[in-house]
Amino acid sequence: MTFIEKILTAQRSHKSLLCIGLDTDIEKIPGHFRGLRDALLDFNKVIIEATSDLTCAYKVNAAFYERAGEAGWSAMRETVKAIPSGILTIGDAKRGDIENSSSYYAKAFYDDLGFDAVTVAPYMGRDSVEPFLSSEEHGIFLLALTSNAGAQDFQYLNIGGTPLYQYVIEKALTWNTKKNIGFVAGATRGSQLRNVRAAAGDAPLLIPGVGAQGGSVEEAVHCGADEHGERAIINASRSILYASSGKDFAEAARVEAVRLRDEMNQYRSA
Amino acid sequence: MTFIEKILTAQRSHKSLLCIGLDTDIEKIPGHFRGLRDALLDFNKVIIEATSDLTCAYKVNAAFYERAGEAGWSAMRETVKAIPSGILTIGDAKRGDIENSSSYYAKAFYDDLGFDAVTVAPYMGRDSVEPFLSSEEHGIFLLALTSNAGAQDFQYLNIGGTPLYQYVIEKALTWNTKKNIGFVAGATRGSQLRNVRAAAGDAPLLIPGVGAQGGSVEEAVHCGADEHGERAIINASRSILYASSGKDFAEAARVEAVRLRDEMNQYRSA
Repeated sequence: MTFIEKILTAQRSHKSLLCIGLDTDIEKIPGHFRGLRDALLDFNKVIIEATSDLTCAYKVNAAFYERAGEAGWSAMRETVKAIPSGILTIGDAKRGDIENSSSYYAKAFYDDLGFDAVTVAPYMGRDSVEPFLSSEEHGIFLLALTSNAGAQDFQYLNIGGTPLYQYVIEKALTWNTKKNIGFVAGATRGSQLRNVRAAAGDAPLLIPGVGAQGGSVEEAVHCGADEHGERAIINASRSILYASSGKDFAEAARVEAVRLRDEMNQYRSA
Repeated sequence: MTFIEKILTAQRSHKSLLCIGLDTDIEKIPGHFRGLRDALLDFNKVIIEATSDLTCAYKVNAAFYERAGEAGWSAMRETVKAIPSGILTIGDAKRGDIENSSSYYAKAFYDDLGFDAVTVAPYMGRDSVEPFLSSEEHGIFLLALTSNAGAQDFQYLNIGGTPLYQYVIEKALTWNTKKNIGFVAGATRGSQLRNVRAAAGDAPLLIPGVGAQGGSVEEAVHCGADEHGERAIINASRSILYASSGKDFAEAARVEAVRLRDEMNQYRSA
């Protein structure tokens, strides 16, 4: 199955644009997990079991796992295995290096850890991105317009009348021979998200920033989805994972995931 | 000791601008290492022992280790431990994410793996970079003008008369309150390297691209070093590590490292 087929199949089978970000933080998960050897994985398994029928994707933020060293690396791989087939798995790794190095990052994230997709940073250009595009079953989300405050520093720079983030999208689409490039665009960017969708054409968008970061679900759907209400993968992390800090965390996560999925679907059909 | 003191002390004590890149490739190291459980680490230890009096820094490219999963992560940590004190250790990881995530990457590379420095990608701006700057003993090399072909795609874009790489340097220097930001600038960039040095002021430069990538040692020193012939950390990887594929690889690596160090020193004094 191609990258885009995986995304559309997941979005249609679960009637959902929701991606859950497994930003699993040893300091925030319920206390009874913390003493356990596989705390990150054990927590993730419970969250996945409670929510997998509600999602089109899970996004694993590598920073939270690398912090835990070898055990974290192992937890990433086992988390991917715990995600039911038919749901897109995204390694949120923001990698990008010279060609030879990027090809090794691709091996690590696609072949060893087993992700369908990774997030990639654009600054080093074409040969840093292409090694992640070599198989049509795997794809990337290239950073375009990110959800954080620092997006203001470089991403809006004026390149002959075009903001840098748009220039990055247009340039990357010239490398997109296998149709497996998507883009990261923050839900916190409001109307700019419409600009991202216009530049990206029918490429999928990974849209973080709803939930704890405060981005609008309505804008994420209206501006980020395509004309069929698809191809926007809208991520929430903390607001779902830590919906409750008590023993009812899994139920609370499910309640919040249902709420977000339904809110997204309401704007898709409106 | 502050970041810049570590660099200057290493460069002065060993009379060297040479950084050796431990891009240790399981497919390229001599055959007798490959069956060993700790092949990457074992090879690195021999290289370090053969060359540590000739270097100011070692750079560990994370891609080569992540490809090996948990064993690779462990090899990174043990490699850092095997580097004698007084030599700068650089985690070439090209990380960068929203603030909370970057702070976890900083914990992973500084606290767990034990590096003095990491390479960081600039695209996500200030809050993605600052978590790497919070202690004055640790510092970063921010990607400015990279050695690969893809540098042409975005890094030279015209920002109101200034190339993007220079804009990145000037912007980052406004965040440099602890004086622990350096920049990556490729030796393959010829005269542009002079422009990088001018923009960077007295910030250290990490200069990859001599050796296998074909950059000029003379230009790296003349354009990249400061007026005292310091603050340029010039990296070679493959040309040293794989100087011989036989049993004499360590001696051959030393011969090439001596040659490069001496060539660099010749241009420092000229």
